[in-house]
Amino acid sequence: MTGLARSTISLRIDQLLELGLIKAVGEKASSGGRPPSRVALNPTSRIVAAADFGATHAIVAITNVVGDVIVQVRERLDIAEGPEVVLDRLVSLISRLIGESGHSVSDLAAIGIGLPGPVAHETGKPAHPPIMPGWHGFDVPGYVRRSFQVPVLVDNDVNIMALGERETIWPGVDHLMFVKVATGIGAGILSGGKLQRGAQGTAGDIGHVRIPGRDDIMCRCGNKGCLEAVAGGPAVAAGLQRQGLDVHGIEDVIERVRLGDLAAIQAVRQAGRDVGEVLTTCVSLINPSVIVLGGSLAQAGEHLIAGVREVIYASSMPLATEYLTIAQSASGDRAGIIGASLMAVEAALSPERVEAMAELVRA
Amino acid sequence: MTGLARSTISLRIDQLLELGLIKAVGEKASSGGRPPSRVALNPTSRIVAAADFGATHAIVAITNVVGDVIVQVRERLDIAEGPEVVLDRLVSLISRLIGESGHSVSDLAAIGIGLPGPVAHETGKPAHPPIMPGWHGFDVPGYVRRSFQVPVLVDNDVNIMALGERETIWPGVDHLMFVKVATGIGAGILSGGKLQRGAQGTAGDIGHVRIPGRDDIMCRCGNKGCLEAVAGGPAVAAGLQRQGLDVHGIEDVIERVRLGDLAAIQAVRQAGRDVGEVLTTCVSLINPSVIVLGGSLAQAGEHLIAGVREVIYASSMPLATEYLTIAQSASGDRAGIIGASLMAVEAALSPERVEAMAELVRA
Repeated sequence: MTGLARSTISLRIDQLLELGLIKAVGEKASSGGRPPSRVALNPTSRIVAAADFGATHAIVAITNVVGDVIVQVRERLDIAEGPEVVLDRLVSLISRLIGESGHSVSDLAAIGIGLPGPVAHETGKPAHPPIMPGWHGFDVPGYVRRSFQVPVLVDNDVNIMALGERETIWPGVDHLMFVKVATGIGAGILSGGKLQRGAQGTAGDIGHVRIPGRDDIMCRCGNKGCLEAVAGGPAVAAGLQRQGLDVHGIEDVIERVRLGDLAAIQAVRQAGRDVGEVLTTCVSLINPSVIVLGGSLAQAGEHLIAGVREVIYASSMPLATEYLTIAQSASGDRAGIIGASLMAVEAALSPERVEAMAELVRA
Repeated sequence: MTGLARSTISLRIDQLLELGLIKAVGEKASSGGRPPSRVALNPTSRIVAAADFGATHAIVAITNVVGDVIVQVRERLDIAEGPEVVLDRLVSLISRLIGESGHSVSDLAAIGIGLPGPVAHETGKPAHPPIMPGWHGFDVPGYVRRSFQVPVLVDNDVNIMALGERETIWPGVDHLMFVKVATGIGAGILSGGKLQRGAQGTAGDIGHVRIPGRDDIMCRCGNKGCLEAVAGGPAVAAGLQRQGLDVHGIEDVIERVRLGDLAAIQAVRQAGRDVGEVLTTCVSLINPSVIVLGGSLAQAGEHLIAGVREVIYASSMPLATEYLTIAQSASGDRAGIIGASLMAVEAALSPERVEAMAELVRA
């Protein structure tokens, strides 16, 4: 099935067994000749560290190599403090959590990090991230590898959320779009089962698509009428404030929606319609089979998603929406951590990496 | 590099040599041991047939296995006459052209077909194509294979144009979007070097994205204000007609633009702006490095592309457009034929296919 020679496969399996990354799980009945061996990932042998950074918080976890969280911590951490402060804190959290997990640093196979801005995935360097002063071009993997000599993978937070949501809730779905609606708005796109990052790593950056007729609203990017400035959490809160309500942030909006406040419900539904306008074009352009809405504003009940559905189903061609599911994120906070873990595991299990590890063990 | 065993590669190379698909091109100097062999595609041994269907015309060609056209014919053919009439004509044209090419039917390795509507690529069946009555769900490969027992690959015309334009003009560009502006408007998207077809094969179907504020214009799809109804060739012609000009179709529009008619130039430029509005979202969403504008309306000088550029550069984030090239199609009519040929060649050279052909030769 792989097109690889039996000898190549044997060699790689032996390396993985030797490293404890996989284990034998008994033999299959033979149809003649040597009975085929069966192996599976050995979830207890090695660990990876996963980190999911938002604008003002970090979630850091130690997981096994099938993405199960062993220990996890969440704390307030301002990404705007710059890469050195933030990554020093990350390193110290990883060290502490490895201890708590009952493992040692030598069990660590890789580190996966999600950041709230565009990242050039090949190099792991952020690319002009708007809310991350001091991070542009910073060598995140190089800095972290001073403390841990393992592969360090970095990607946009929404991309890893797309990976995590697919893994946990939509296994087997190859065309999935994860849309985060929070302070910022962005999307992670899986097409043909693969994350689409685009030429400069900015694919899915829909927060600054212009919403027609809203040129009265300035965006922090310098343009007018951007989706984020119209439908992001702070914009919704500010709109309610202008109506004289005592609303200071996304949390207040969500609380009011929970209490059934009509003005807040209408504002979130309108934000959903605005997001839906942009997603309608996305549906025509990339033809996903599942759109998942996540981020804090999506947690305000069904109102955001109702607005999104209203516009997409009204404006799309029947063929593009015939098999389209629009769903709320069900993995919650876990999506980011699980996606970051998967990204790290994939790198740790790559043939090049296994070869290098096997050489280290032999040496 | 391939990860394949030397024995596997030898076997496949021997099969390809036996079939005449590749030829030896001398030996490389040895660095000790058996000198490495060098092989190349044998362009003269085998042929493929390529067909590019528009709404009212067909281009059919015989090419060699590196995509060079040997013989080609273009004729008026109404796609709306239905699959049997159109495909019977295709079969008869292929037979005639094979003769003219100096080859025999046994040299034919595969057939590639581009159709002006959505196609489920895996099965080769059109999926609710709006301008192709009778084609929905029709087994195009099965029908053509009654006459030629070779692989028959079918895709949307814009997808094969994207392949052809990349091959001829933008080799090595992995993130390219080909936009056809003619009677209809659609896009073929290459991301990470691969065609993106989406969950139902409708990816790139941007002709029915709604342009805000143009709800006065009915589209043939039943919605209002679709891009195609606002900026497609017939829409531009109709707009000029309403101004009292003697314009009956795209050809008249293009002719007037060539003569410097200001009303026609303004109309084409405005169509470019409308297309640009939709493409701005595409730039944010998929982050291409090259956007190519093709189709008959793009041939009206630089006016369409000027309108597109005006809007994209005014409305996009700097990072997304920093390395973005927006260019006119330079491969012209050839893009479709070359793309269809490449699609066919790729199928003909797949390991499964080579194995099957080798068995036939041995039998």
